[in-house]
Formats: sequence, C-alpha cells, structure tokens
Amino acid sequence: MINPSETTGTAAKTFSSSDVFPNSKRIYVKGEIHKDLEVPLREVSLTETKHPNGRVEVNEPVRIYDTSGPWGDPAYQGDVEKGLPALRREWILSRGDVAEYEGREIKPEDNGYLSDEHANRYNEKQNESNRLKEYPGLRRRPLKASQGHPVTQMYYAKQGIITPEMEYIAIRENLGREAAFKAIQDGSGPRNLMNFQHPGESFGASVPDYITAEFVRDEVARGRAIIPSNINHPESEPMIIGRNFLVKINANIGNSAVASSIDEEVEKMRWSTLWGADTVMDLSTGKNIHETREWIIRNSPVPIGTVPIYQALEKVNGRVEDLCWEVFRDTLIEQAEQGVDYFTIHAGVLLRFVPLTATRATGIVSRGGSIMAKWCLSHHRENFLYEHWSDICDICADYDVSFSIGDGLRPGSIADANDAAQFGELEVQGELTTTAWDKGVQVMNEGPGHVPMNLIKENMEKQIEWCHEAPFYTLGPLTTDIAPGYDHITSGIGAAMIGWYGCAMLCYVTPKEHLGLPNRDDVRDGVVTYKIAAHAADLAKGHPAAQLRDNALSKSRFEFRWEDQFNLSLDPMKAREFHDETLPQDGAKTAHFCSMCGPTFCSMKISEEVREYAEKNGMTDQEAIEKGMQEKAKEFEEKGAEIYS
Amino acid sequence: MINPSETTGTAAKTFSSSDVFPNSKRIYVKGEIHKDLEVPLREVSLTETKHPNGRVEVNEPVRIYDTSGPWGDPAYQGDVEKGLPALRREWILSRGDVAEYEGREIKPEDNGYLSDEHANRYNEKQNESNRLKEYPGLRRRPLKASQGHPVTQMYYAKQGIITPEMEYIAIRENLGREAAFKAIQDGSGPRNLMNFQHPGESFGASVPDYITAEFVRDEVARGRAIIPSNINHPESEPMIIGRNFLVKINANIGNSAVASSIDEEVEKMRWSTLWGADTVMDLSTGKNIHETREWIIRNSPVPIGTVPIYQALEKVNGRVEDLCWEVFRDTLIEQAEQGVDYFTIHAGVLLRFVPLTATRATGIVSRGGSIMAKWCLSHHRENFLYEHWSDICDICADYDVSFSIGDGLRPGSIADANDAAQFGELEVQGELTTTAWDKGVQVMNEGPGHVPMNLIKENMEKQIEWCHEAPFYTLGPLTTDIAPGYDHITSGIGAAMIGWYGCAMLCYVTPKEHLGLPNRDDVRDGVVTYKIAAHAADLAKGHPAAQLRDNALSKSRFEFRWEDQFNLSLDPMKAREFHDETLPQDGAKTAHFCSMCGPTFCSMKISEEVREYAEKNGMTDQEAIEKGMQEKAKEFEEKGAEIYS
Repeated sequence: MINPSETTGTAAKTFSSSDVFPNSKRIYVKGEIHKDLEVPLREVSLTETKHPNGRVEVNEPVRIYDTSGPWGDPAYQGDVEKGLPALRREWILSRGDVAEYEGREIKPEDNGYLSDEHANRYNEKQNESNRLKEYPGLRRRPLKASQGHPVTQMYYAKQGIITPEMEYIAIRENLGREAAFKAIQDGSGPRNLMNFQHPGESFGASVPDYITAEFVRDEVARGRAIIPSNINHPESEPMIIGRNFLVKINANIGNSAVASSIDEEVEKMRWSTLWGADTVMDLSTGKNIHETREWIIRNSPVPIGTVPIYQALEKVNGRVEDLCWEVFRDTLIEQAEQGVDYFTIHAGVLLRFVPLTATRATGIVSRGGSIMAKWCLSHHRENFLYEHWSDICDICADYDVSFSIGDGLRPGSIADANDAAQFGELEVQGELTTTAWDKGVQVMNEGPGHVPMNLIKENMEKQIEWCHEAPFYTLGPLTTDIAPGYDHITSGIGAAMIGWYGCAMLCYVTPKEHLGLPNRDDVRDGVVTYKIAAHAADLAKGHPAAQLRDNALSKSRFEFRWEDQFNLSLDPMKAREFHDETLPQDGAKTAHFCSMCGPTFCSMKISEEVREYAEKNGMTDQEAIEKGMQEKAKEFEEKGAEIYS
Repeated sequence: MINPSETTGTAAKTFSSSDVFPNSKRIYVKGEIHKDLEVPLREVSLTETKHPNGRVEVNEPVRIYDTSGPWGDPAYQGDVEKGLPALRREWILSRGDVAEYEGREIKPEDNGYLSDEHANRYNEKQNESNRLKEYPGLRRRPLKASQGHPVTQMYYAKQGIITPEMEYIAIRENLGREAAFKAIQDGSGPRNLMNFQHPGESFGASVPDYITAEFVRDEVARGRAIIPSNINHPESEPMIIGRNFLVKINANIGNSAVASSIDEEVEKMRWSTLWGADTVMDLSTGKNIHETREWIIRNSPVPIGTVPIYQALEKVNGRVEDLCWEVFRDTLIEQAEQGVDYFTIHAGVLLRFVPLTATRATGIVSRGGSIMAKWCLSHHRENFLYEHWSDICDICADYDVSFSIGDGLRPGSIADANDAAQFGELEVQGELTTTAWDKGVQVMNEGPGHVPMNLIKENMEKQIEWCHEAPFYTLGPLTTDIAPGYDHITSGIGAAMIGWYGCAMLCYVTPKEHLGLPNRDDVRDGVVTYKIAAHAADLAKGHPAAQLRDNALSKSRFEFRWEDQFNLSLDPMKAREFHDETLPQDGAKTAHFCSMCGPTFCSMKISEEVREYAEKNGMTDQEAIEKGMQEKAKEFEEKGAEIYS
C-alpha cells in the first residue's frame, strides 16, 4: 500500500492501480474495425446485496475510464528507464505517410547549458536530485510527414478515414454505455441503476446515446474535438477532447528554478494519471528541460502538452528581448521530435491589447502572456508568434502536434474577468483557429482564470461563437480570490460549471496555487477535485454513461455495502481512512449502521423498512394507499417494526 | 498559536481571533437609531505598497463580517462555565411584552435517563468525557410573550417597529459597504479596489447599494428574511437570513450515540463560529441532550437550531411508534425555554408521499423524514406535526423561535433528485409557511441534498414560487455521489450555485459526510469551503461589498505583499503554511517573486513593468499606441528592462 502522504517520489517505484483501487481489475475491450485494438478499462467488482427477506442480489461490476496506462495494469512489469511500449507505432507507420529522419542534434542549450563543459561544471555542484540525468532508454529516430500532406488525425478524419485512434476512443468513451443504452431501451437495467436517468441540459452540446467510431471521426473532421497524438509519442493511449465527449482534466507538473527534480516530475506524471489526469502539461523551467521532458514522454500513457516559449526563453538566458522566430522554431522542432502532443502558443497576445492590461487589477498573470507582452513592447512590433502562425502550423501538421492556443491575457483576479484584453485575445484565437484548420492542424483554445460565477457562461458562449466550436480548455475558473490554500475548491466550482456549459477540458488547480509547488498530496487533491468537477459536468450534460457509477455507489451506500461504497469512489483510500477514524472495527464495515446515527437508529435503515413494507403491500402509488392502508398499518406495527430489531 | 490539527477540544480553552487571523483587530461600529448598539467587525490592517518609483501607497484596512462573538475579541476574558453576556436582554425586556415565569422542570428523561438514579448509575460507568456534566452557569427563568401577541421580529416588523436587532443587522451587513458605495458614487475609491465592480446576475434578488434598518424591517415583514432570535437566547448577536443579504452558512455539530462529549461540542461551536459559521445546529442524539444544548446556547454568539424530534424520540426510548403530540409539545417548550433559535420540523412529510419513496434509489435519507415516515405508516395516520401545525406556531410565536421547515424527503442520491416525493413535500412547505406567517412566526424552508447541476435551479425557482419567497436553506446540494471523503467539494459546487440563484443559507457538509463524525480539521474544512461558496455567490449576485475583499487580496498578491495576501484570506494559517513549505525563509515573504517561477522570471513582475511603462507613457488606450509607440519602445528597451534586474 502506498503511503499517500509520502512526498518524495522515486522513478524506480512503480504504482499499480490495485494499490489505490481495491477490488478493481484491468480489463481490455477488443476493437471491431481494428481487431488488434485492446482498450483498457478498470472494472470494480461488487459484493452481493443480501436483502432482509433472504433474497440475494448480484451487483454487476462497474467499468471506469482508466488513464493510468500500462502502469495501472498489475500484470505489466515496466521500467521507467526503458519507457512504455510503443502502442501506436505500427498504426502510424502503416499509414505510409511518414518517414524516419536524422532529427535535430541535442545541444547543451536544450537543457539550459552554454556548453557540455558548462553542464559538467554545473552538475558537479548539484546534489543528486538536481543533476542532469540522461534518459537511458530507447531514443527512436523521429518521424515526420513524408508525402506532402498533414499527418494529423484531423486530416485523416477529413478524408473519411477512421483511424485506430478513433475506434479506440469510441470504445473508451462508451464505457459501459452500450450496456446502459440497451438497458434503457429495453428496460432491463437493474432497478435503481437504470431507472433514474435525468435529462441533461447541455447548452448545444449533443452527446449521442452510443458513440461510434464514425461519430469520433466526424467530430474531429469538424474541429469540434481533437485527438492529441504526436506521431513521435507512440506510447500514448488515444483520447479525445471535445464537448460531445466525457469532460477531460489536465494536470500540470514541471520542475521550476527553485525546486524539484526529474525523478519527481516523472513520478508526478504517473501519480496524476493514476488518479485520473487525462493529459499532463510539463511546465518545467530552468535547467534540464529537455531531459525532464524525455523521461516524461517516454513514460507517459497520456498526451503531454508544453509551452515552448518557456524553453525558448531559457535558450536566450531569460532575456525576453532576445527571443526570435529562429530560436522558437528550433524549440518547436526539438519538442515535436520528442513527441509533445500539444503546444500552448500565445499567438493571440497582440501589441494592441497590451496597453489594455495597464489599468487591470492584476495586469498579466500568464507567464507566456507576459513574455509576449514584454517582447511586443520592447520591440514595438507585432507578436512574432502571430506573424509566423502559418509557419508554426506547417511544423505542427508534419508531426500532428495539436494547438492549445494560449490565453496570455486571462484574468488574474475577479476584478479583471471578461475585460477587453481577455476578449480581444479570444477573438484573435478564433482567427488563428481557422488558419490552423486550413493547414489540417488540430486546435483547442485556452481560457478562463479568475471569473465570478455570473460571468462564466459568457466565456463559453463567446468561445463557441468566435472560435467556431473548437474545444475549449480552461484553467478553473476560480470563482473568488479570497481563499489561497483552497484554490482547488474556488476553481473546482467554476470548472464544474464551465464543463457543464460545454468546456471540453479543465486544467486542474492544486491547493498550492498562488503559494508554492504542489507535492504528491496536492496533486492528488487537485486531480480528485477536478475529477469531481468533470463528472458533475458529465452528469449535468446528461451523459448517458455518467450516472451509472453514481447509481451503483448510492445503491451500495443505501445497502450498507461499505466496501463497495469505498471501492466505487474516486479515492477509496481516503473514504476508508475517514470511515475508520470513527469506527475502525472490521465489523463496522458490514454493519447496518454508521457513526452518524449509531446502531439504534438510522434513517437509511428505516427507509429500507418503508420500502420493504411498501413492496410487500404493493404500495407504490397513490391508488394503493387509498385501497386500505389502515389494516396494513396494523400489520406493520406488529411485524414490520421487528425487521431490524 | 493553535495547532489546527489538534482534534480534542476542551471547554476551558479560549480561542481568540488573533490566533488564527494575524494583523486583525476587533472593532465596534455604533448604532444611529439605537445609540447603545456596538456591532463587531474584524478589521485587517494592511502594509504599504512600495512602488518601484519610490512612491509609497497606503492600503486601507479591510473590514470583515465576524461571527466569532465575544470569543473573537482579544479583550474579552470569558469563561465557558459562566456563558456569554446577555447582549439582547435589555432590548427584549424593554419592549414590555414578555414576562419571566417558572418554566418547565428539567427531568431526567430530558437527558435520556429514566430517573435520577438511572442517571447516576449510568454515569458511574462512563469515562469522564461521556458523563453528564451539568451547566454550572446562570440559569435564567424563561421569558415568554405576555401581552397576547407574538414577540417575533416579524411581528414587530409588521407593526413598523425597527428593533435594535434590525439596526444591528443593517450595520453588520453594510460592512464597509457605505464607504464602498460612496467611493463608487464619487469615484474616490483607490484604483483597483473600486473600479472593477461587475454587475451581478441575481435571478430576482435585489440587494440595495446600501442596507438601511428600514430595509431590514421591510424584508422581515414580508417574510423574505428572518432574524432567528429566541428571547431566551439573549447571548446571540443579531443576524439575518434572506436572499437580499449576504449568503449565510450553517455548521452542524452534535454528539451521537457512538462518540464525542459535551466539551467537544461546545468547542466545535466556538471553532466553527471562529471560522465563520453564521448559525450552528446542535444535532445531538443519545444521552445528555439537554445539558449539551444548555452549554452550547449559553456560550453561542450565533443562533442555534435543533431538530426537536430527535430529543422527543429519545424520550420514548427510540420507539418511533410511541411518538405523540404530548411528548413533542413538551420538547418544544423545553427547547424554547432554553433559547433554541430555530426548529427544524418535518411537518411536510405527509402520509401520501411516503409510498412515493419506495421506488427511489436511496429511499428516505433525512433522519427526521424517516422518523415521520415510519410514524405515519405504523399508525396509518397523517403526520401529527402537520395536524398540530397551528399549535406549534402558537408556541414558537411566544418565544420567537423561527421555523426551518424540514425537507424530510430530500434526495439522497443524484438518481432521486427533483422527484415527486421531494417536490410534493416542498409544496406542503409553502402551505405551512403561510400558516406560520399568519401566526407571526418567522420561516425558512429546508431543501436539496443530492442534485445534479442542471436540476439545481428548478429547486430554487419552485421554492420561491411555492413558498412565497421565504428564505431557502439547503444542504449542499451535492452534485455527484462518487466522491465520499470529498463531499465538502461535491456539495460546495452546488452550494455556490444555489446561493447565486437565491438560496439564503447553505448548510455545510464536511469531508466526513457519509463516512464518520467530523473532527476539528473537518469542521474547519467544511466551514471554509462553505465560506467560499457563500462568498462566490455574493460576488455573482453583485453584492456591492463582496468584491472589496477580493480586490484587496488580489492587489496584495499582485504587489507581492505576501503577509497581506495571507491575512486577507479565509484561512491565513493554511496559506502561510503552504507558502512556507516551498519557501520557508522570512525573506521570501517580502521577495518580489514566488516559488512558481523563481527569482529570475515572474509574470507578475513583467506585468508590473508593463504597467509602469504604460503609465509613464500615457499608454492606456488604443489612441496612445498609435501616437508613436515606436520611440517609446526604444526607451523601454534601454531603461524599462532594468527596473527589476
């Protein structure tokens, strides 16, 4: 069992899903179009219900979307020094439109050094954990488009091709949905599990009852969803970001100039995907950026995003004024060859917007945004990322790197929400989106920051309109500024809401936001909070599969199946730990009572009696009551009250 | 300094606000109509801003609503064995419509014993903390209406009388609002503090720019707000619950049959009001209910609510069938004489609704609801609380006990949200509300439980319509069932939303919900999460004063005034602790950088440069740019880049 409060990770340590998710097993669902597909899911086994009348009811296992990759399969014996298997390699090669090539030479400045000698000198002075540690596993020669057309999922989708990635996603997103759908149709679902589907309210999104690979293709072709999947990151398991699919979450990791090491970052990636992060952004700064990223990508089952300007800035020794297209272009190619799946690029921070931020309460709070603002001002030239957008698109089309068009002018306080600078940039994001689509590149748009509840919806509406339904990817939003230390919660509120309104991916915020660097506990708190937000949004949108898990958990709760309640939850360890604080005895986990009301009285127990009584007497509607409850009441008084005593 | 992870409280220990809220002081604002009023607020002092150009800017202190009562005043030397001063005693007596009387005799069964001898025998076997511990302080003779009319705030309001309670509330709710309002009007507010007021969206609520005592009176007279203020709880500081005021939160405490003692409950009450609980419900069950409540009420600066049926059930040894009007009436009088400020009464759980719950996923989950359902079924009679509603109103009118009409059929799972049973009861709540108003009794209605986001608004809309705008008071709602251990968050999302839609008070949920009894850390997490929800709702409603604190905190964050940022937050201890985990050095708290980006680069630092630059050059709008930024850019390149290097 992992100690969840342990804060130092080691790259050698492997986690398996069974450590943190008891009674779960890894299953694989086969493809139909592409027969070799094996789509991983986590299946939670449940115990039987023993009804007071002696009847035994079997509870079907519940299937859960699983982002932990091979690391989450107890049968997998991997080694972070070797990296994950190249799941997608054959799919990519078999399309016949990419070729290996020599690739760009790795230079000392990729890791923040002036020369090899500088690297050696610097590293001698560091303690073990801060030292440059070269990735020892396989370094493949990079792949690149070779047939003069984009090699993006969007390109294939537009050609009418259903890639293995698309079918994989359809299976993954259905997640028990086929069963659920059929049960709803024919009424065969177990009672309490299927009968209570609320119609969602989805503000224009439209999740079909059952997701087909063709639906995936169509959504990607329209640009309404993306599949971040660099051809040089074959280790990643296909996933989709779009408002007609399950809401996704992103976890940020990354060493900074003041703390943390490569090992820790790899561990944070594995730790966050174990808890459910759908993508991970590596926001490393300072030394060893290239190697840290290499370790992360080779071991990541989820798409990896970066903000390339961070590394470009390191290459010019932190002098913003010295940034230029050549250095940036070099960095894009470096990262595309490594396998980064999506780039955050702040191409919408235009010169004319910068003065609009001068009267803000908190100016520019995005790192990328402030870098570009400073560059624009100091050169008095238009943002070179904007001017080179077409060149940037060409690079991304060659590797299938998706864009996450940055929101460099996002509000850093409630006071600045939805202002002219923010919305000015959003409009430009729409223009950049169109250009990227013309080049076959997949796009999502970044948004929010700090936004009060009443202004959240406007963000979503404007993004859909101005960015032509490209997926929206937002940080939070934080709904108040007054709770540093609890910003996973201030932002979880906004995230749930914008997810409901149609936001496709939510960038997590940890309790350390604004204060410090997250440790493992913070990452866990951040991911679990955002899983809550995403799931609450799926429920509110009326996602056909989402409510299955709620219903199964609530049924186990109602029936005092404590272990099942823990195991179906987002964090079984914590649920069990909290329960055991008050009632540590093993017997308490099968007891028909809990610590809130104690053994002599319990509302759930009484309602179970009511139900038993009503069932026995056919009292399920108004009519039944009027048919003479009086005598039945007498009978209950004599017998019913004894059931549990 | 209090150790926040300490989980055992002792009644002898006093907390002062300054332990947990550094740089705060207690201030008192005088009344104008009632000159003797002294309304407590907490004032946070801020440090100066030192601008890069040498200019020093004074930052005005920020005033914060304070629920901690005399316990939060460092000058107060109280003793829980003596109880708080009787703040309202003279106001009550001077109205000339109440009289002292002998009151009901305290009996052994009030504390769950058959006889004094039984109590002695039982207590001998207990360890110290579970023993009956009689309250040693002053026991006043109870007061009761003596002039044949109700002595409720609603009655006075309808007579056009502005009571001291009403003026106290107006001052309390304005909370710097007067200053804010004037500054908005004349444009004198400090930059960044006043200029960014967003219009709220309030769904029919209408918070005036400045709250007058007359406005308070009018809202209470209409039944749109209540002032829970039993004439036998003179220790309480007046507060108001209504959608045109600040959103309030309630914390539940109470010993249960399996754990916790009187001392711990008193301590939980003080601990939760220290963090910001506006009312506290004592949900004790098992032994020593009467004495526990006596200790709590005599020491509570906030209104205390109870669910009298819990104690009534103890008096009939837990046999629901034996409950009757006489025992319930006796309990109401017992508690009214003690000073309980509001009663939760499940009078809307009608016989005809009970069978509607039989096909639910989770039946009846409210303890009071299931007690009444069982009673109705076993007697096959209509709920005796419904049938005696008029008698109950008469009792409450004599003491000014407000109603919190229970929602015994609230949904216990997403599957059961907004169903016929729940809404059937809500309609009856409306009918009960009208009757209570006719008797002059103040009313709020209880609601939610588990409700997905898309179904929250319907709850609020129906409650406003069916219950004639009486204040709504909801548990959560929890927006998903799948996160036991994190239900403060699943419910904080729903609470923020329903608060925005117009809910007047939010009943907190701790991380232990569904799992165990909350300890002090859980109470703190629950209260802080709900303060976030309530404040986010106030912001979204466009409450004129709410954004002041956000703006002040954001300004301090932007200016790297770390101590001010901590001190303005909901939980300064946690913010500081998190900051210090990464950067423990004292110098880091005045440093112009943080651990996220490190000392060589920081987005806030760059934006400050942008602002300085723009200000210096008058570049605050589009026009300015076009007037020749080129040469200014050059100048910036030479000078600006040096500002912080």
